[in-house]
Amino acid sequence: MDIEVIAFDVFGTLVDWRSSITDAFARAGRAAGLTADWAAAADAWRSRYYPAMAMVLNGEREFQPLDVLHAEMLDEVAAEFGLEALDGAARAELVRAWHQLAPWPDVVAGLAALRRRHIITPLSNGGVGLLTRLAKAAGLPFDCILSAELASTYKPDRRVYELPAAYFDVPAAQVLMVACHPSDLDGARHAGLATAYIPRAHEWGPGGSAPAPQDWVDLAADDLMALAALL
Amino acid sequence: MDIEVIAFDVFGTLVDWRSSITDAFARAGRAAGLTADWAAAADAWRSRYYPAMAMVLNGEREFQPLDVLHAEMLDEVAAEFGLEALDGAARAELVRAWHQLAPWPDVVAGLAALRRRHIITPLSNGGVGLLTRLAKAAGLPFDCILSAELASTYKPDRRVYELPAAYFDVPAAQVLMVACHPSDLDGARHAGLATAYIPRAHEWGPGGSAPAPQDWVDLAADDLMALAALL
Repeated sequence: MDIEVIAFDVFGTLVDWRSSITDAFARAGRAAGLTADWAAAADAWRSRYYPAMAMVLNGEREFQPLDVLHAEMLDEVAAEFGLEALDGAARAELVRAWHQLAPWPDVVAGLAALRRRHIITPLSNGGVGLLTRLAKAAGLPFDCILSAELASTYKPDRRVYELPAAYFDVPAAQVLMVACHPSDLDGARHAGLATAYIPRAHEWGPGGSAPAPQDWVDLAADDLMALAALL
Repeated sequence: MDIEVIAFDVFGTLVDWRSSITDAFARAGRAAGLTADWAAAADAWRSRYYPAMAMVLNGEREFQPLDVLHAEMLDEVAAEFGLEALDGAARAELVRAWHQLAPWPDVVAGLAALRRRHIITPLSNGGVGLLTRLAKAAGLPFDCILSAELASTYKPDRRVYELPAAYFDVPAAQVLMVACHPSDLDGARHAGLATAYIPRAHEWGPGGSAPAPQDWVDLAADDLMALAALL
């Protein structure tokens, strides 16, 4: 393997969106005098992610930045969980909570190790602004910020996976996609990228589990430090 | 002033392209057994920059990444300076020399200081790959990499200056453009950005001079450390 650029999925792979969004819901709820199962609300919000993007991917609607989709999904979650008392400012702040998610414990050191010999970038459905703010807040030392927004579509649209090779003028096989979601890696390999699987058993909370590494991935490692050792 | 994002011109403003390209020419010449006034060759190459981009801006040709324009301009410079003996590999390496330019002495510390309270990004006619590699090699701690390439045009096309406000969802007035070229700042202010002028008297070599600050800029500072103190 001759890898020049390493591209990372972000939500789930690098950051623990569930804990951060649960906390953000709890803060917003406290301020509005509301109670609910905030982790369930976070899960409900995230569960609307793929269906919302599917409408863009299917051509049912034009590309919208993820912040716009997040705001729409949140209105539905608020209705479902009896959170109608959350006003516009509170909802805007919740949408911005996706700009400040806590990294998994291995991520900051793992990225720093991987950065020594490779160009590292996110390759996420989050927008350029979202990813930049997230990386800055979490101290993720990316070399640049690539987002599905730059292709005006979402993963697993092939055009997203083609961005790193195009911008860096290298063959697709010199780009390594790192993700905890087999579907993301499957999209990447169909675009000719190398793939690395990292399990994140706790993405959906304690007691969860992660799939075994797919037999077709190029690399599998327990976390980013282990991946850096492999490379 | 309420600035959230600081966007930097790169060639001349942050990096000393002339010394780096002169050195690259000297290395390539030595390897090929050639001698020439390498600083003059560097100046000749850079002098073709605005005319080459003008053809794209005028609609005479489609957008091409700067690396492509650099390669074309280099062929012309090679003919002009009797450097026909530079082969394809040597020319490709010279084009890549624009990916590794030395920063001015104040730049790394100045960017680090400005980064503490602002999002910092290049906003250059260099491509995403060029700028990422340049920032990585020079240790420029950008939060993201914005390039004219993302608008498929070049500065001073207004669409380039509009990128930071669009990606970060802030008013244009909350974006500060920093440059040593009045024409760049003029383009930025016409797109509604705040502007900061930094003189770089030695951009075209020792003995050069820089224009006085334009009376319409929002800020003027001797270097990036002084700009950080102003902000």
